[in-house]
Amino acid sequence: MTASFRFTMSATDGAARTGTVHTPRGDIRTPAFMPVGTAATVKAMMPESVRATGADILLGNTYHLMLRPGAERVARLGGLHRFMNWERPILTDSGGFQVMSLAGLRKLTEEGVRFKSHIDGSVHHLSPESSMEIQRLLGSDIVMCFDECTPHPATEPVAAESMRLSMRWALRSREAFGDRPGHALFGIQQGSVFRDLREESAEKLRAIGFEGYAIGGLAVGEGQEAMFGVLDYAPGMLPEDRPRYLMGVGKPDDIVGAVQRGVDMFDCVLPSRSGRTGQALTRFGAVNIKNARHLDDPRPLDPECSCPACSQYSRAYLHHVFKAGEILSSMLLTWHNLHYYQELMQGLRDAISAGTLEDFARAFHARRAEGDVEPL
Amino acid sequence: MTASFRFTMSATDGAARTGTVHTPRGDIRTPAFMPVGTAATVKAMMPESVRATGADILLGNTYHLMLRPGAERVARLGGLHRFMNWERPILTDSGGFQVMSLAGLRKLTEEGVRFKSHIDGSVHHLSPESSMEIQRLLGSDIVMCFDECTPHPATEPVAAESMRLSMRWALRSREAFGDRPGHALFGIQQGSVFRDLREESAEKLRAIGFEGYAIGGLAVGEGQEAMFGVLDYAPGMLPEDRPRYLMGVGKPDDIVGAVQRGVDMFDCVLPSRSGRTGQALTRFGAVNIKNARHLDDPRPLDPECSCPACSQYSRAYLHHVFKAGEILSSMLLTWHNLHYYQELMQGLRDAISAGTLEDFARAFHARRAEGDVEPL
Repeated sequence: MTASFRFTMSATDGAARTGTVHTPRGDIRTPAFMPVGTAATVKAMMPESVRATGADILLGNTYHLMLRPGAERVARLGGLHRFMNWERPILTDSGGFQVMSLAGLRKLTEEGVRFKSHIDGSVHHLSPESSMEIQRLLGSDIVMCFDECTPHPATEPVAAESMRLSMRWALRSREAFGDRPGHALFGIQQGSVFRDLREESAEKLRAIGFEGYAIGGLAVGEGQEAMFGVLDYAPGMLPEDRPRYLMGVGKPDDIVGAVQRGVDMFDCVLPSRSGRTGQALTRFGAVNIKNARHLDDPRPLDPECSCPACSQYSRAYLHHVFKAGEILSSMLLTWHNLHYYQELMQGLRDAISAGTLEDFARAFHARRAEGDVEPL
Repeated sequence: MTASFRFTMSATDGAARTGTVHTPRGDIRTPAFMPVGTAATVKAMMPESVRATGADILLGNTYHLMLRPGAERVARLGGLHRFMNWERPILTDSGGFQVMSLAGLRKLTEEGVRFKSHIDGSVHHLSPESSMEIQRLLGSDIVMCFDECTPHPATEPVAAESMRLSMRWALRSREAFGDRPGHALFGIQQGSVFRDLREESAEKLRAIGFEGYAIGGLAVGEGQEAMFGVLDYAPGMLPEDRPRYLMGVGKPDDIVGAVQRGVDMFDCVLPSRSGRTGQALTRFGAVNIKNARHLDDPRPLDPECSCPACSQYSRAYLHHVFKAGEILSSMLLTWHNLHYYQELMQGLRDAISAGTLEDFARAFHARRAEGDVEPL
């Protein structure tokens, strides 16, 4: 186990980069997709199955874990990795995003946020300092600054005020984080869709200095075009030699476009959540397995996919277990979706290494435009 | 693949027997426990995980499968084994037990049973002939006769009438089953708790002749003492050289007592259903993982168990995922429970082979009397 956290880049292709985030708990190949393990489990998956899909790192949610089972409890039980049986890297968010969305149940001040638990109504407090402490107790490898995710749409003055609060909190996060070799603290750029604010935010973060930089405040309803508009300039404002993480993104085409614009890391509940609602994400686009057209279809979801759902079951079976409300439906479709995401990331990494990202993206879009496999 | 279905006995210990049911799809080591895969899935388990627990055979429910996805559909898709990705033997029940329990929704005649689907209210019919046809379409390796499971309590005249109907249906089942090398048809003894009726039923079944014999009409509310009372004589009424299957049983101590009385095969939803409701079945007895005493317990459920739930997680974690409503809770506890059941069966088989079944049963009961592991 080495004590250092560092990012090495092995190739670029246009704005896109591929490389490795080295951590004492293992390497993270970038561009990387992090499955979401909100409550210390990637829903419907055994951790060894998550690993089998190719995931190098998971994301945990500070808000959920501080409320249940509690950060002190996780620490007493040996930390989040041991608790949830995942020995590789874990990134935790700061809890900021979740508490901000507790409309009516939270109060924001310069100090931090006071809020009521969605589980039992108990009152809690989150600040840069307490978020750093909770993430330390969890044992997170990559810690996120406590920030306010500016809602969309926001006027420029509102976005500016929100971003500046986040930058003051970023400094407090950095100071509270302290010196923790082998662990990383990521700053989060805000500024909504305003280029000047994104630049101001990036400057302030660079002045503080972080092991990595996230692009926050996107994927909050602005749409892909507006998001790509920001991504046309935002990644370039962040230090080239540090990983760049686009929080909460996204759909497969969001990821491809963001990688083309220089993003290295992603997380999203989409593949796991869709899996539980009967939606398979494939190279042909989304397939709704609950659709009656699958009732008698003996073919696999995707004949080229090697995941257990595709290699061992028919669409008819996947349709059946979904309609019957069987847990196996969530298990198989989540597995497929996470497998597909990791395969997509591998494809992106390979294409960047080969200098063929543009071809890769063209083929990606063309295959989705063709749509699902032909009717029987 | 051999085309023969046969039972070989390798050792006895008192009334207990151990041996092998040979089928073209693989051997079934007896005494055997069959996990229940009602709707073409053992709930919350991948079939390879069910196999990893040591299961040689699964049970499928004709009633559920005929309604959804439908037996003809399963046949078109290559049969139940291929459909559900389980290549080893499958036993299907006849549907009789489930339709009889549809109080108010079914009409029983000499011909069979007309009933309404619990899914969509559509009207269906089951008879010895249609049950044989459905089980053939499913591709079941061990087919059960269509019978009426006599409710408990029943007066002797009612039990006699019910049993005689089942015996007429047993003959019709045998005739409808026809000649299917490699597949077996099991007769089902009825007669409630009345010894004379059990003997009459056994005689009638022996006269027809089956590849195996089930003991039906037990585990329907009569209690363990009454059940063991029947099992003190019922297995001995059935041919010694054929497997004996006690339907719908049971709790671990039911199984131990029934094996001591000469039963070879079992099925029960208990281990899988309990797993989904937070109850772990262990060598110490049942452990309710939802109990708050597990909140901070770093110890495994059972330190001597090698299942994933016990070898990779703490009681605190299992408690957490149950309280958080996570699917992983059902996955891990079901796995543990099925693992424990198969380990119990292996212990019984080994003890019978060694001639030490009495010692095994004594140790089994003593350990359960000690109760769960000591408090922290």
